[in-house]
Amino acid sequence: MTKRSISLNCDMGESFGHWVMGNDAQVMPHIDMASIACGFHASDPQIMSKTVQLALSNDVQIGAHPSYPDRQGFGRRSIPMSADEVTNMLIYQIGALNGLCESHNAELRYVKPHGALYNDMQTHLTVFEAVLDAVSSFDLPLMTLAITDNQPLLDLADRYDVPLLFEAFADRRYQVNGQLASRSNSDAVLTSPDDILSQVQQIALYGKVRTIDGFMIPLEVDTICVHGDNPQSISVIKQIKQLLAKEGALL
Amino acid sequence: MTKRSISLNCDMGESFGHWVMGNDAQVMPHIDMASIACGFHASDPQIMSKTVQLALSNDVQIGAHPSYPDRQGFGRRSIPMSADEVTNMLIYQIGALNGLCESHNAELRYVKPHGALYNDMQTHLTVFEAVLDAVSSFDLPLMTLAITDNQPLLDLADRYDVPLLFEAFADRRYQVNGQLASRSNSDAVLTSPDDILSQVQQIALYGKVRTIDGFMIPLEVDTICVHGDNPQSISVIKQIKQLLAKEGALL
Amino acid sequence: MTKRSISLNCDMGESFGHWVMGNDAQVMPHIDMASIACGFHASDPQIMSKTVQLALSNDVQIGAHPSYPDRQGFGRRSIPMSADEVTNMLIYQIGALNGLCESHNAELRYVKPHGALYNDMQTHLTVFEAVLDAVSSFDLPLMTLAITDNQPLLDLADRYDVPLLFEAFADRRYQVNGQLASRSNSDAVLTSPDDILSQVQQIALYGKVRTIDGFMIPLEVDTICVHGDNPQSISVIKQIKQLLAKEGALL
Amino acid sequence: MTKRSISLNCDMGESFGHWVMGNDAQVMPHIDMASIACGFHASDPQIMSKTVQLALSNDVQIGAHPSYPDRQGFGRRSIPMSADEVTNMLIYQIGALNGLCESHNAELRYVKPHGALYNDMQTHLTVFEAVLDAVSSFDLPLMTLAITDNQPLLDLADRYDVPLLFEAFADRRYQVNGQLASRSNSDAVLTSPDDILSQVQQIALYGKVRTIDGFMIPLEVDTICVHGDNPQSISVIKQIKQLLAKEGALL
Repeated sequence: MTKRSISLNCDMGESFGHWVMGNDAQVMPHIDMASIACGFHASDPQIMSKTVQLALSNDVQIGAHPSYPDRQGFGRRSIPMSADEVTNMLIYQIGALNGLCESHNAELRYVKPHGALYNDMQTHLTVFEAVLDAVSSFDLPLMTLAITDNQPLLDLADRYDVPLLFEAFADRRYQVNGQLASRSNSDAVLTSPDDILSQVQQIALYGKVRTIDGFMIPLEVDTICVHGDNPQSISVIKQIKQLLAKEGALL
Repeated sequence: MTKRSISLNCDMGESFGHWVMGNDAQVMPHIDMASIACGFHASDPQIMSKTVQLALSNDVQIGAHPSYPDRQGFGRRSIPMSADEVTNMLIYQIGALNGLCESHNAELRYVKPHGALYNDMQTHLTVFEAVLDAVSSFDLPLMTLAITDNQPLLDLADRYDVPLLFEAFADRRYQVNGQLASRSNSDAVLTSPDDILSQVQQIALYGKVRTIDGFMIPLEVDTICVHGDNPQSISVIKQIKQLLAKEGALL
Repeated sequence: MTKRSISLNCDMGESFGHWVMGNDAQVMPHIDMASIACGFHASDPQIMSKTVQLALSNDVQIGAHPSYPDRQGFGRRSIPMSADEVTNMLIYQIGALNGLCESHNAELRYVKPHGALYNDMQTHLTVFEAVLDAVSSFDLPLMTLAITDNQPLLDLADRYDVPLLFEAFADRRYQVNGQLASRSNSDAVLTSPDDILSQVQQIALYGKVRTIDGFMIPLEVDTICVHGDNPQSISVIKQIKQLLAKEGALL
Repeated sequence: MTKRSISLNCDMGESFGHWVMGNDAQVMPHIDMASIACGFHASDPQIMSKTVQLALSNDVQIGAHPSYPDRQGFGRRSIPMSADEVTNMLIYQIGALNGLCESHNAELRYVKPHGALYNDMQTHLTVFEAVLDAVSSFDLPLMTLAITDNQPLLDLADRYDVPLLFEAFADRRYQVNGQLASRSNSDAVLTSPDDILSQVQQIALYGKVRTIDGFMIPLEVDTICVHGDNPQSISVIKQIKQLLAKEGALL
């Protein structure tokens, strides 16, 4: 049984100019950590400022959610760049959000890369190190995917003095190695609220998750990523929150 | 006779991706303050990082040189936006450069808006206040145009607790009110090295400048803006530096 | 009584990447002319291609809806540029949409500038001529605002061999000179379906509109611009269409 | 001995806004075909218009030089996209340049993809077909890399009714399969004018090229790509032109 209390994190501030995405005002009251887009895949300075204020007024921790420079592809396309370019691109975005946080006397608390960069970080060691290099410059923890054995990641991050926050996904199915099943797999995403709640309960109460092939694998996590794209998903977030509060009370 | 020692500042880091602008490596050794572009009118995270390192290795003070979002127009086009949008757009850019400075253990020392934003700030009080609002969040001084009577600007900046650095232009002609003569005027820019040096000497030694109409007006300045676009202009920068060093010795 | 049959036009294809705007699939069946965004204030090549196909399958005329280059401001900010730059920027966008039309064997039928450019065209003769210059290169008509006396505009357009299509707005209030009342005026936009239908009826049946000050002014129009932002507005579009069909039958 | 007369093509119009790249005015008089950037990796509508005029006044054929959307990376980074997205993105760019050509009564004559897209087209059949799909919509030939055996490419292009123009590079070394040696190889680019001229002579006179490993391979080409980045390279272009004129006389 995991001894850690588990938080809820959600991507926030992904509108851009006059285009609206997500239901930030409805979701923010129910989460613990807001990963705020930094203008490269979504958002702009005005929306970032408003999202920081929304998080602040809901007492939600603020994280930077930086991305490859790709508004049209919403940061879901991998852009080839050198390690040095990845690092500087991340420092730029984190610094920009950090400035906006400080202008509201808010504190930046963590970094979670977005989309293709998040994926590339799991699969390319040079990208993971480039991200650590950037994050270390801000003395912040890095949020990354919990896998079957987190220790090698912890060892690597130690070399950059970067604490890690491990996250699981409430609605994504897992492979036996602890990586997410590819979205090209038709079963990769859980849609039934019951299945989502059941997966969260496994993770929170037993530190385990059932893979897409039916195996039980260990998964030690600090935080669970939820999505608030529609009214039903907001309802699921509320139920996950209640579930975690109840499990937390049992610990 | 002005009692202040006068520094030289120059716009730096205005390349973008594979396009090169300026002669940063040649100019940096001869200036005191580098106003570094922040990615909105020029530059990108990679170039910003390299320019910070170049300034650092030449012991040159680093300033942020933020702009309206306008790469195609090089920030020389005024983009209509609310005061709040100006403030957040500036905090974003200054924060981004600040992050890159900190990653190199360099310190950001001042802010100087670029191009159309610099001009709008002189002529629209709401823009000037929006800039002060952004700069105050970083506890930095703002560099702005010295005019015949700087006191009203100092009073306004005081309300935001922002120190001002007043600058004059080595190669621009002045109107009688202390504003720059419009570039649409064929005499607006000095091109002869002798004329440029003579104008700098007037400003540095006597705190005065001869206007385009032949009047002498007072101009109290902290810094002189130079440009290093071509080999001749770099030679002029060196001569201005020698001149200021000599005048400094006389004071 | 006006003798022309009056069409309905609507802005279309204003999504961008993963951000959705408007209800194109719901609106398209009820309009006659689709003004399709060309990638500068909204849209991208993929969305443009899909919107062309949607118009084609609904037998709706396709127009180009080009803009200043301003995604973040949705083309509602006036960007200072020379007449030559306006012309080339428009040819670029119209040519791009024209290419996508031809790839689907669709025909581009007219041009209607968007947002700030549409406004600037009404108020700056040089901008109007720069637009005419661009449109003339494609042998297309230009859609512009009907005003009290359209003749001077027709005379000017004649010099560029560009036919004009005059439009009125179903839901905007008018000034006595035939220009739209500024949105800064709280009464500038009609929101009640009855008021909107009444205004359309005045225009279609009598060639007149009641201004915001209560005057009746003449307004000779070829087309009426509608908006389909929400379910109610789509319902209003259907009612306008029925109204125009009925009036058309009376003529 | 090849019976075809061989033309010279060069990338043109790769400046952007205030940033200048290349020496278009110096190079244009010495080439036969100008591949003009279309705004996605370089250029803007204003520069495209001026480059079309420059080609026109030098009686140089105009080609479209479209790219992945990547100004910062100069189109040298492969952006993952579906075949449909590639096709529409190309139609957009070609259509835009086509519009600007028509505004000057110039004719668009061919299409040559740029940078990473050019490379991806050689190595990914789906990309090559997506490009053919776009080009077929304009009834233009596609310029592509000549390889040891061009026939399979000709067969594929036939299915899209697209003629191919095969090009060789004056200053790039070849692999034995007819592909270019990777730039990561230190010998990949010829720098000595003599070596460049010798390679062009082999290609033009004998339809062969010596590979980086010393083999002679056949290479049947319509056009040779040259670069005019600096004064020396412009001098080489002139020598290549003289060489081809002389060989042409021998044929």
